[in-house]
This record gives sequence, structure tokens and C-alpha cells, in this order.
Amino acid sequence: MSSAPGYAALCRAYTRLYRYQHLASIVGWDRNAMMPPKGNEARAAAEAELNALMHRTRTDPRLAEWLRTAENEPLDDIERANLREMRRDWREANALPERLVEAKTLAGAKCEHAWRTQRPANDWRGFLENFREVVRLAREEGQFLADDSGLSRYDALMDRYEPGVRAADVERIFEGVRQWLPALIARVQAKQRDEKVIAPAGPFPLASQRALNLAVMKLLGFDFEGGRLDESVHPFSGGVPEDVRLTTRYHEDDFLHSLMGTIHETGHARFEQNLPRVWLGQPIGVARSYGIHESQSLSFEMQLARSRGFVGLLAPLLAAHFGAQPAFAADNLQRLLTRVRPGLIRVNADEVTYPAHVILRFEIERALIEGAIEAEDIPALWDEKMQNLLGLDTHGNYKDGCMQDAHWTDGAFGYFPSYTLGAMYAAQWFAAMRRAVPDLDARIAAGDFAPMFEWLGANIWSQASRWETPELVRRASGEALNPAHFRVHLEARYLD
Amino acid sequence: MSSAPGYAALCRAYTRLYRYQHLASIVGWDRNAMMPPKGNEARAAAEAELNALMHRTRTDPRLAEWLRTAENEPLDDIERANLREMRRDWREANALPERLVEAKTLAGAKCEHAWRTQRPANDWRGFLENFREVVRLAREEGQFLADDSGLSRYDALMDRYEPGVRAADVERIFEGVRQWLPALIARVQAKQRDEKVIAPAGPFPLASQRALNLAVMKLLGFDFEGGRLDESVHPFSGGVPEDVRLTTRYHEDDFLHSLMGTIHETGHARFEQNLPRVWLGQPIGVARSYGIHESQSLSFEMQLARSRGFVGLLAPLLAAHFGAQPAFAADNLQRLLTRVRPGLIRVNADEVTYPAHVILRFEIERALIEGAIEAEDIPALWDEKMQNLLGLDTHGNYKDGCMQDAHWTDGAFGYFPSYTLGAMYAAQWFAAMRRAVPDLDARIAAGDFAPMFEWLGANIWSQASRWETPELVRRASGEALNPAHFRVHLEARYLD
Repeated sequence: MSSAPGYAALCRAYTRLYRYQHLASIVGWDRNAMMPPKGNEARAAAEAELNALMHRTRTDPRLAEWLRTAENEPLDDIERANLREMRRDWREANALPERLVEAKTLAGAKCEHAWRTQRPANDWRGFLENFREVVRLAREEGQFLADDSGLSRYDALMDRYEPGVRAADVERIFEGVRQWLPALIARVQAKQRDEKVIAPAGPFPLASQRALNLAVMKLLGFDFEGGRLDESVHPFSGGVPEDVRLTTRYHEDDFLHSLMGTIHETGHARFEQNLPRVWLGQPIGVARSYGIHESQSLSFEMQLARSRGFVGLLAPLLAAHFGAQPAFAADNLQRLLTRVRPGLIRVNADEVTYPAHVILRFEIERALIEGAIEAEDIPALWDEKMQNLLGLDTHGNYKDGCMQDAHWTDGAFGYFPSYTLGAMYAAQWFAAMRRAVPDLDARIAAGDFAPMFEWLGANIWSQASRWETPELVRRASGEALNPAHFRVHLEARYLD
Repeated sequence: MSSAPGYAALCRAYTRLYRYQHLASIVGWDRNAMMPPKGNEARAAAEAELNALMHRTRTDPRLAEWLRTAENEPLDDIERANLREMRRDWREANALPERLVEAKTLAGAKCEHAWRTQRPANDWRGFLENFREVVRLAREEGQFLADDSGLSRYDALMDRYEPGVRAADVERIFEGVRQWLPALIARVQAKQRDEKVIAPAGPFPLASQRALNLAVMKLLGFDFEGGRLDESVHPFSGGVPEDVRLTTRYHEDDFLHSLMGTIHETGHARFEQNLPRVWLGQPIGVARSYGIHESQSLSFEMQLARSRGFVGLLAPLLAAHFGAQPAFAADNLQRLLTRVRPGLIRVNADEVTYPAHVILRFEIERALIEGAIEAEDIPALWDEKMQNLLGLDTHGNYKDGCMQDAHWTDGAFGYFPSYTLGAMYAAQWFAAMRRAVPDLDARIAAGDFAPMFEWLGANIWSQASRWETPELVRRASGEALNPAHFRVHLEARYLD
């Protein structure tokens, strides 16, 4: 290391940042899963202080110097990839002034906290008061990033979640989806019209739901020595790779919501829990982009958990936890889990209508950030697009409309496209897996997930940030992102 | 504030420290109450990084300059008291080099983590391997503080928990206690020998115990909007004043352990929850010394909760949570809660034998820190002192002997005396309260805790660190610490 003093100094700085990030992750999880309401103000101040500290660390002028020095040092391939990720992180952080980072954290926390009561109260006016400031700061943030990168404001924000993917790419892909999605939804609905589906009869005691979720997490390989499952209003996967914190929420009359959510978060968790330990603490050790992360949660929730083979394994588990009932027959359960019904809530959407929710949000937030619309304009646009895309009326229903997601309240504009990119990647992974393991579905049906976990482990989890996204996709699946796999998957599952 | 730039700069620095301390408290609570085992290593590194950061902040050379400047600025009484506490904090922090602070955190976390499995396994040898390093670093710490203050090593460590109280004072007080305690224990045991006490018949379902604890916390005024109750191996009161985190632990065959522990922690919690909001973030807003803190937990657990009046209120609550049984009759319950039995475990000790546990620890840790003995010598000394003080044999039983407390594993030497000082203060508060409110006990028996809470609120909670301990005691009770109140209390409760 003595021949690479610049790189060594960078590694030390990033180790320190990793530890600060650990603190931020744990107190952030706590705020969402544990904190009582009166803790909010002091917590927001403490988190803002920590964010400011991390920002100062990432904008320390010595980093620029070390980055320059390291460029000419003798580094191996891994070190060079790590340096590339350091440079990406540095570029992102140094485009923003500290006062903006702090103001954004405070405004996001304030908006998000009030949103927890405003959403159930359908209080759009009250929400708007805080939200305007979140939008103002997000635009300012986008402008800073844009000035630095030469991208548009929205491209610059999205680049942080999906490096290298541009709004024009997403627009092109989503235009492609628009060509066939409405017709597919109609055909699936026609096919399902005469299907008999028996609804599970509740109530489903919360303790049994929790036990079922834990059993399924275990089945899916979640390591409970390195993580936990708790409850929060908006479920998420938090914590750190060494200690992954999943959350879910329970409704006594519906166990599927929490079960499928938990399976989704378990996909995120397995990625984190299987990142190479030797790289942890360095930027190369971080999970690749949000879209790739979402491809893991959707590989679990959509590709695996709604497959006929997995449903056959799930059926007896349901009977064991809630008592036997006709709805738990595997065929019925499969129909239940693949029922396509346009609905208001994104997180409850089936995988066929889900892209419509994302397309709507992408169009609105892109216009909002680029300044083509204002926050006040969102409800009317939302109503119009929900009508056009899914034929649903959301007029005056803010809580199940534009107030339903936590992303905007936190100012995380540019994230939504990752969900649908993730769904497309996931379909591409399973297509590649089936080429490599022709009897994949039979083995899943027999309870043998080893081929799936091994493929994901070798091609995705163990790669962390070793490659940029396009290279990761090519190495894993032998081709660039190809939305055709997603379409083929939907047609095979919903029309055959 | 423009006429006091030094003081204003200090206030800003201490606000920042308060926010860092918030992060430290929450992740510390998490480590004890929530964290799965594989999170330990990364957590220890993150906490050490944060401790180092706080240490750097407290040793920033500008603080010394601002302290000097502020000394000559026009400050009011409150600001001057705040400045006095800043100076105390600064002096303590600046005596220690950063590498020692970091090493101590790491060694303490390592020792404490291993202790969780070593204690149940009675593995003194294994424990000793980590513990030697904890002792070595605590001595080094004591030496630094001693060099700075001119105190002895142990005095210097103890001063951080009980400012102004010296080992010689404690020795004198404890020598006084030794004069009458053994005889008192013997007389109480003789008196109780023929008492019939019906033991509660378990099991007591954990969910009912938890519900009972929550009900009693509510009765005692705990604010659940600003705090929570969870579980941990070693119960504690953590979090921050705005968000107090209590923990307890449950045993299905014994609800009293958890109930009385929860009442104890609720006493700590009410102090924190009622610190003046306007001072929070500044050193003056911190709860006065550990002994004063302990006087609150013991006011709740000992003075109040074992009084005949309170037991009369508790009896129907027990029946409501566990079903009626003869043991829950108030008279029987009262005998149960005031039963005096020398035992091995400090946290289970009754209030009459408790001082013996503290005297033993004080003598051992003082000798250990001053270098008169080594860690290896502890078990033999423990055996000898337990035999002399309480007539109990601990030979070879490390887990219920010298390995029972978390204090030493963490390197918190000098803390133990605070427990018995706290018991003495608590007796003094109640003597003062009864002078001020002659029908105090009748009002408690009627479920009216207002006089008690108002007295503690006005005299202790609202004072935070406004006064140094001796002045606080004098203002609250009209006299200096007077152990006679403790003796009178024990004789009245246990011999009348």
C-alpha cells in the first residue's frame, strides 16, 4: 500500500464514511420502526447534523487531491473499480453545498412526519404546505447536479439511483410498454373474468402472520443472526449489510399484503447479506444500483413467489399457520396471487398493472422537477393519468392517490423508474437461469432453491459494485437490458 | 448574545455534541435491545468512530479559548451555571487522548459482547482474557484524569459519576453503615422468621407481564408519546430526554423481578422526561449526577413502590392481569415486597441487604483501580466479602458472583457507590416530602401521587444541572446528605 498513498488515504476516508452511514441507517430504521412521536424534533436535528458531517467528510478538499494522486498509482482491477466508485460518490457529493443537504433533510423529515397523519386524514392542503419546500429543494438539488454533470435536472437526480440510465431511455422503454400493456391487461382480465377464486377467510391473528412471515423468510435463506423483522407504516429494508432490518405491517383481515411484502424485502435483504464481506466498508462493496436492488426483491416477490412451484410450497405453510381452508388449495392460491385488477395503490398492484403506476409517477415527477408543472398541479394530472392508464377515478381521493408514497415526501425524486427497470431485470435473470438450469421450475417446486440462490449469488450478490450496471447485466445474462423478457414472462404467466 | 461571542460559540458546540450524543444513545439502546449478534463488529466500529468524533469535538482547541473568553463576558446566573458545566465537561474530556477513548470503547464492547454468553457458561477464564484489557485501560484512564485533577485514580473515575464525592467520604459513610447494618439485617430476619408469606403461583404469561408493566408505568406518569418499553438482558434506561427507552426482561415464573425493575427504570425516565425543555441541548440541561439519578429510580422502586399505600393499589392490578390468587392480598404482597433475604444477585437484593452488595464492589473496584489487586484476585476477594457481609458462599459460582454486573465489563468503575448514595438521597427526599406534605402516605394510598411528583418535579427534575450536587441537596431538603434518614426509613419499614 506504500506505493499507493493516495488510494490508501481514500480507503481510510471511506471506511470512516461507512461507519457514519451505519449510524445513519440504524437511527433511520429506528425513526420508522421504533421512535415515539415526541422524539421526532430532536431526531431530525441529530440526523441533519450527521448528514452534514457526512457531507463535510465527502467534500473534504483532500479527497480531490487523493483522487488525483490515486489515478497514477499502481492499482489492481479491484482497486481500480473501487476508485471508480469513489469518484462517482465524490462527484455526487461535491456538487451540493452543505446548507442544501441539511435543509433537504430537515424539510423531508418534517414533511414525512406530518404526512403520517395527513395521509389518513386525506389532507392534501396541509401536506402541500410542507411539500412545496421539498419540491423547491429537490429542484435546487437537481440544478446543482445538472450544472456539474451537464445532464438535465431530472436526469441528474435519476442518475443517483440508476447510474447511466437517462429519462430519454426510460421514456423509450415505457413507450414500448405502452404499445402492448393496455391490450395485455384487457386480455388477462377477459381470461380471468370467469375464473372462480375463493378469498381467504379471516381474521388472521397478527401473531400467526408474524410467525408465517418468519417461516417464509427462513425458507428464503434470510440470516436471522444478521437481521430482524419489525413493523412500520411504510415497509422497507434498512439497516446495514451486517445487520439488515426489514419491516412490514399487518392487517388482521389480510395476510397476503404483509406476506408478499416480506418476501419482497427478503429479496433486498439477501442481496445485502451476501455482499462480499471483504469489500464491506468500501464503495465497491455497496450493492449496485437501485434498479438492480429492485431486481432482487422482484425476483423473490414476483418471479419466484407467484410461480406455480413456490405456491405449491406455500399452501401447506398457510394451513399450518392459520388452519386449513378451501382458499389455501394450491390452484386457488395461484389464481389469487396472479389475479390482475387495476387498483389505486401501487404497493398492492399486481405485476401486470404495476408498470402503469410507475409510468404515471415518472411522467409527473419528471415534469415537476423540470419545472413544467407545480406541486399544486399534481392531483389533476394524477386523476387524468389514472383514468387513462388504468380506467380508475381518483378525484378528491388524495390518500389513495398522490399522497400514497413516501418517496416524494422525502424528496426522493427519480427513484420510481427503478421499480419497473427492476421488474425487467428480474425477468431477464430468470430467463438466463432457465437457460443455465433447464429444470429450474421443477427444482423450485421440489423446495430446492439452491440453483436460484447460487445463480443470483454468483452473478449479482457477489458482484456488489464491481461493474457498472450495463456491464453487470451483460455479464450476468449475456445481453443488455432487453424488455422483451418481461413481456414474455407476463404473457407466459397470465395468458397461457 | 453579541456581547458574549465566546459563550455563544460554546453553546453552538454543545448543541452539536448533544446531537452526536443523541445518535450514540439510540444506537447504544439498539445494540442492547435490538441488534442481532452478527451486527456486533460493525456496530462496535461505528460506535468507536462516533466516540472518537465526540472526543475530537470536546477537545477542539477553540473550546479552551472560548471558555477563557466567556469567563469575562456578561452572563446571567443560568448562563454562568451552564458555563460551569461546560467547563466540567471540557476538563474531563481534555484529560484523555483520543486513542484511549477509542481503545476503551472497543475493549468494552468486545468484553461486554462475549460476557453475554460467558456469564451463563460461568466462564471466568474466558471473561478474564477480555477483562484484563478493560482493567488496564480503566487504570490508564484513571491515571490521566488523576494527573489532570490531582485526585487519586479511583477518586478521579468516581468524580465523573458523583462530582465532588471522594472515596474517603464514601468509605466514612460506608463505615457508618457497617456499624448498624449487620445487626439490622439480623433483627429484620428474626422478625420475619415466623411471618407467613404466600408465594405467587405462576406461570405468569409474558404478554400479561408486559401489559402490567405498561399499566404501572402509566400510573407512574411515564409519557409513552416520548418513550418506550422493550426487552434486554441487562435492563436499563437509555435513549434521550425527548425519547426515553426503558428495557426490562421477563421470566415466566416470576413477574416481580420485571415489575420492580420497570418501576425502577420509570423513576429514571420521569427525571429525563421532565428535564426543562428550554435547557435541553446544553450541559445545564443534563440530569444532575448518577447518584441523584439513582435517587429517582429508588424513590420510585423503594420509597414508593414498597410502601403500604402503593401496595394497596398494586394488589388489584395484579389480580386484573394474572387472575386473583391469595398471594395478591395486599398484606401478603407487602410482606413479599419487604422480605429481607441475603442473596447472591445485587439487582434482586432487597433494600436492607443492598448496601452490602455495594460496599463489597466499592472495596474491590477501588483496590483494583488503585493497583492493590489484579483482576485475577477478584473471585477470592468476592468469596471472602460475601461470606463476611452476607454469610453467603460464592465459591466457583462466577456467574452469580463477580460476573453478574455489566458495569465492570464496560469499564464503568466508580459507578457502584452511586447506588447507595442514591438510596440515601431518596430517603432524605421522602423525609422532606413528609415534612412538607404531612398526609403524603394517605394520599399515595388513595392513588394521589401528585404531591410526590410535584415535589420531585420542583426540587429535582426541573433543576437539571442548575446546581452542583451538595447545593441541590441542601436546596431540596434543607440539609446536606444525612445517612440517618436512610437508617430511620429502614427501621420504620422493617422493624415497626
